[in-house]
Amino acid sequence: MAVGLSEPEKILPVAGIKLSSLAAGIKKNGRDDIVVFVIDEGAHCAATFTQNAFCAAPVILAKKHLKQSAPRALLVNSGNANAGTGETGMQNAIQSCQWLAEQLECSGDQILPFSTGVIGEQLPMAVFQGGINQVVSGVSEDNWLSAAQGIMTTDTIAKAVSKTFFLDGNEITISGIAKGSGMICPNMATMLAFIATDATIEEDFLQQCLSAAVGQSFNAITVDGDTSTNDACILLATNKAKNKKLNADSIEADRFVEALNQVCQHLAQSIVRDAEGATKFVTVRVSQAESIAEANTVAYTIAHSPLVKTALFASDPNWGRILAAVGRAGVGQLDIAGVNIFLDDVCIVKNGGVDADYTEEKGQTIMNQDEIIISVELSRGDALTSLWTSDLSHEYVRINSEYRS
Amino acid sequence: MAVGLSEPEKILPVAGIKLSSLAAGIKKNGRDDIVVFVIDEGAHCAATFTQNAFCAAPVILAKKHLKQSAPRALLVNSGNANAGTGETGMQNAIQSCQWLAEQLECSGDQILPFSTGVIGEQLPMAVFQGGINQVVSGVSEDNWLSAAQGIMTTDTIAKAVSKTFFLDGNEITISGIAKGSGMICPNMATMLAFIATDATIEEDFLQQCLSAAVGQSFNAITVDGDTSTNDACILLATNKAKNKKLNADSIEADRFVEALNQVCQHLAQSIVRDAEGATKFVTVRVSQAESIAEANTVAYTIAHSPLVKTALFASDPNWGRILAAVGRAGVGQLDIAGVNIFLDDVCIVKNGGVDADYTEEKGQTIMNQDEIIISVELSRGDALTSLWTSDLSHEYVRINSEYRS
Repeated sequence: MAVGLSEPEKILPVAGIKLSSLAAGIKKNGRDDIVVFVIDEGAHCAATFTQNAFCAAPVILAKKHLKQSAPRALLVNSGNANAGTGETGMQNAIQSCQWLAEQLECSGDQILPFSTGVIGEQLPMAVFQGGINQVVSGVSEDNWLSAAQGIMTTDTIAKAVSKTFFLDGNEITISGIAKGSGMICPNMATMLAFIATDATIEEDFLQQCLSAAVGQSFNAITVDGDTSTNDACILLATNKAKNKKLNADSIEADRFVEALNQVCQHLAQSIVRDAEGATKFVTVRVSQAESIAEANTVAYTIAHSPLVKTALFASDPNWGRILAAVGRAGVGQLDIAGVNIFLDDVCIVKNGGVDADYTEEKGQTIMNQDEIIISVELSRGDALTSLWTSDLSHEYVRINSEYRS
Repeated sequence: MAVGLSEPEKILPVAGIKLSSLAAGIKKNGRDDIVVFVIDEGAHCAATFTQNAFCAAPVILAKKHLKQSAPRALLVNSGNANAGTGETGMQNAIQSCQWLAEQLECSGDQILPFSTGVIGEQLPMAVFQGGINQVVSGVSEDNWLSAAQGIMTTDTIAKAVSKTFFLDGNEITISGIAKGSGMICPNMATMLAFIATDATIEEDFLQQCLSAAVGQSFNAITVDGDTSTNDACILLATNKAKNKKLNADSIEADRFVEALNQVCQHLAQSIVRDAEGATKFVTVRVSQAESIAEANTVAYTIAHSPLVKTALFASDPNWGRILAAVGRAGVGQLDIAGVNIFLDDVCIVKNGGVDADYTEEKGQTIMNQDEIIISVELSRGDALTSLWTSDLSHEYVRINSEYRS
């Protein structure tokens, strides 16, 4: 049911990154469930992780390893989140890194582990070990698409994108993959996203670029308001390209920032387009707020409202539910006479009341679309925000009452 | 699909209150849609209203009238919320009070208007006038049950309750009715609840009792996190009973407070038991929090999580979703080693990890029940809260994608 999203086309290789995936048997459906990224020496790694206090064992371990060593590989398993698994889960995460380290002849703390899938079950370690022992033999620079498929859980379509641009006359590539379609309300991170570039870049600046890009992409999407225990977004820079080393002061830094933002937004929006049960792709824009926090509060209140989401599913121009969500968002001293609400370019609420030119037909035409923009003006200031969300359908309930996430 | 809720039994009359209801034609289904409460002189009225900034015209007008005069009647229509209807909606609310005032030979500001139903459509005024002109002739002290039916919208079952107790040897009655099953996350108020007592009581103390009772009842329930534009809870005291006038210092004040709390909790829980599409009645208790606000944040995060709610619908002991909700609730510096989670009396999470004695069978037994208590201990302090919620079912999506609220 993905909205406006098709299988990704060819994803460009990134010099210094080789990938492999296989079906070890962690997933019951026989699909690929282990993915490795093998990273050449000399690369930098930037990362953001979930803010959920119950973060999964591999998240805790990946953060620790990042502080200790420059990573030589990412080890991703799908089908089991290794979250809520206590000390056994942590030992299993450490063991899995050790097995891959033996294959790659490096140390265990040079492996960053990632898991996604069912919460609260222990990893099937014998199956996992078998997969890790085999997966490395298949590594190739050209395996981005199969890696994108290998990290999927309830996703119906793989999410991947490449961008190229020039720095000092050198063609630079950014390629990325992501997964996720439920338990999506990232907070300083996302479900799983892995992005790599061959750009030569300062490590601090790399993290700065990633944090900024994530704020406008993975942190600006929500499916169901549920922040996962396993979110992570990784940006690798292999420093293989011949460009002059980028830093915050580089004249061409903006080109990198812009390309990275495009990659992150494409992947983040792909997650919403493939949200569990999604039939609509909805942009919520709130402007003229006193602060970005206020704009976000209003935007998330609309995006999380089950009544707004079921009206979107029904293609019902039931704008009263949007108005009710704005009104309950908790904006202090909100003067409703300053509130305007639009569906695409159709004004539905003007100065707090129904717009004189609004007709049910105009609203219905917009609501019949697959992609809808809800805009709210608050007349309180200059701050604005945009986020992306999906509708609430029978299929969402079916998936989440049948799937053990 | 109401959970553990049957049609109310006989509701006791309250001296000084007469009621009437009829089908004027505002509802398309031919059911009763106008209800009046006619109040004898000498009564007091306490009230709480929605905190939604987009409150409906009748809410604004009822607040104004309450300041101006002692009310002689409540005028309730169901089927149309008269919200988001601008200046025309306000004029219509004023006009409807005027029509009823003419029937009762009082002034318009002695009528409190209430509406519930579709947002954003104007009231059919000719139909409404016809109903108002007829409804008064049917008033009787014994019409509480038909009034409870007359204020329903998507409710499947009427909500009403009576309690009696003694003050100075005088039998005192409290009777109340309520409606609501969607757009339920009251904030300082509820959907519509009308409660009356014959107790003789000071006006200030009456409001104090209502505000306290609402905090532990209507403000402690949530179906979908959507706070309505039309919420109101009214408590009438007719002062007809011969008890010594109650105030905050009365020795027997606690008896009134306790009976009122029981009435409010019964009505509030009835709303959740009859929540749109509900198959479960769920109590969420959070204890050992630093503050009540912190306890509420965690409790509402669990109660609003679509993933927790769909797991409840599926009777799936998928406790990882509860754990994930606690983790993302935004409690600062939450030490997960102090977190315990229970389903009824079955411990699922102990000190942040799966309890050693937990088995899937134990969890399944609890989840198969219609009524479930989720308890969370935070090990941070002494504050605690309880709230009541429902699950998220196919039926919720069906109702809200087909019904124009």
